[in-house]
Amino acid sequence: METVSKARAHGGTQGVYKHDAQTTGCPMTFAVFVPPQAEKGPVPVLWYLSGLTCTHANVMDKGEYRKAAADHGVIVVAPDTSPRGPGIPDEEGNWQFGSGAGFYLDATEAPYAKNYKMWSYVTEELPALIAREFPADLSRQGIFGHSMGGHGALTIALTYPERFKSCSAFAPIAQPSTAGWSKPAFEKYLGSDPAAWRAHDATALIEDGKRFPEILVDQGTADSFLQDGLRPWLLEEACKKAGIALTLNMREGYDHSYFFISTFMADHIAWAAARLK
Amino acid sequence: METVSKARAHGGTQGVYKHDAQTTGCPMTFAVFVPPQAEKGPVPVLWYLSGLTCTHANVMDKGEYRKAAADHGVIVVAPDTSPRGPGIPDEEGNWQFGSGAGFYLDATEAPYAKNYKMWSYVTEELPALIAREFPADLSRQGIFGHSMGGHGALTIALTYPERFKSCSAFAPIAQPSTAGWSKPAFEKYLGSDPAAWRAHDATALIEDGKRFPEILVDQGTADSFLQDGLRPWLLEEACKKAGIALTLNMREGYDHSYFFISTFMADHIAWAAARLK
Repeated sequence: METVSKARAHGGTQGVYKHDAQTTGCPMTFAVFVPPQAEKGPVPVLWYLSGLTCTHANVMDKGEYRKAAADHGVIVVAPDTSPRGPGIPDEEGNWQFGSGAGFYLDATEAPYAKNYKMWSYVTEELPALIAREFPADLSRQGIFGHSMGGHGALTIALTYPERFKSCSAFAPIAQPSTAGWSKPAFEKYLGSDPAAWRAHDATALIEDGKRFPEILVDQGTADSFLQDGLRPWLLEEACKKAGIALTLNMREGYDHSYFFISTFMADHIAWAAARLK
Repeated sequence: METVSKARAHGGTQGVYKHDAQTTGCPMTFAVFVPPQAEKGPVPVLWYLSGLTCTHANVMDKGEYRKAAADHGVIVVAPDTSPRGPGIPDEEGNWQFGSGAGFYLDATEAPYAKNYKMWSYVTEELPALIAREFPADLSRQGIFGHSMGGHGALTIALTYPERFKSCSAFAPIAQPSTAGWSKPAFEKYLGSDPAAWRAHDATALIEDGKRFPEILVDQGTADSFLQDGLRPWLLEEACKKAGIALTLNMREGYDHSYFFISTFMADHIAWAAARLK
């Protein structure tokens, strides 16, 4: 693991790191904020998964998470959203597929199956690296994310409920296997059989019996992706039927940007911290 | 004035605006955050001046000022740092002069005198526009900034102490007329006579009798520009001799970046708000 940069912030350290990832077969960059409490021993880890087009840097620059993470004493890890770079298959100009659009799944179809292994990267390889290199207590993990990363946080928490003590999302893609901006990516990554898509669709996972005790979602009412792409009501309906305690906050006038995310970031970190204690 | 973008954030509105500026002879872009309190009437205005290489966007994206501005009910205005665009004289590749490096002064030397009028822009033209277009109470103004913008905030507050109720700075250039990274710009903008530089040098202004009642400065000890470029001890000495109440916080391990600025942003807004009440 190589340290790309390190800076003191809110009493802790914001770092950017790079490593040659086995799962994705390429160098991967990620950001880690270590709060001041880590000087005294391992602290809980909160995973933040970013949305389409993002790298590790978007939330690091615009997410306003460091004060709350320092107040509550949690590490925040922000991985990249896909493999990327020379030799990685991509569709130039398509922001909903390929680079920046890994959808937190393991692709099974050529030519993507070799590198697009974001599920394995985020749930196995990167946690092992974080455990080795940082003062992280991996018995206390939470996960959250935005949009495509909200989808990732939900599907990962529903799949590994024993691993995560908290799960929340900003404007998550509630049912990516049917939404116009994600279905084509599912087809290219996972093949044409919709049955294969259900393991990477939060509402389908819940319909298929997966459970997570409590979920927090914030969603802006002025989000231009709300009606066609995000559709939190599908998640709400699935949670209701399944008896999952979903807190869905519709936020009047907020859009899909980091101006929205940063506004409710401290709430989500407090939510996670309360469950990571 | 044209609205470039507008988004709800922390209960208020973060906007980006553009106008054809008379002083600089080119379109100028700036950012304004209007807090929720402005719905009930005019609120105080806090001017944030950015550092070398920045536009309005750096502090808007990375400054983490909106929560504190919303808590205290102040408008935050972030102007650009220079004229820029086609037809504006510049030295390509020189980040310490020209585009992104207006130094908040009115150039007197050709070919810069025509457009590099950032002093007039920031102290006259933009305040008049803000007064016309926003719910701003210009009888209550504060000013702060970072690095070159800290220099700007100090020189403007010292020149117009009756106009500003607060002044603070993150890692300001304390004596730009003698610092290696700013002296060449002063020569090109203001000519070779050092006497002309003193009106744009905070320590020289204080030596020449200008006063401001209280100044807050935060400075990181790991700032790579500290020794040669910033030198807050020169400001400290000048303030001491002049009886100006300077609060200089040396912050252990912090660098020159927005990781540093965002850490102490809420302190500076609280400092300003207490004096703008």
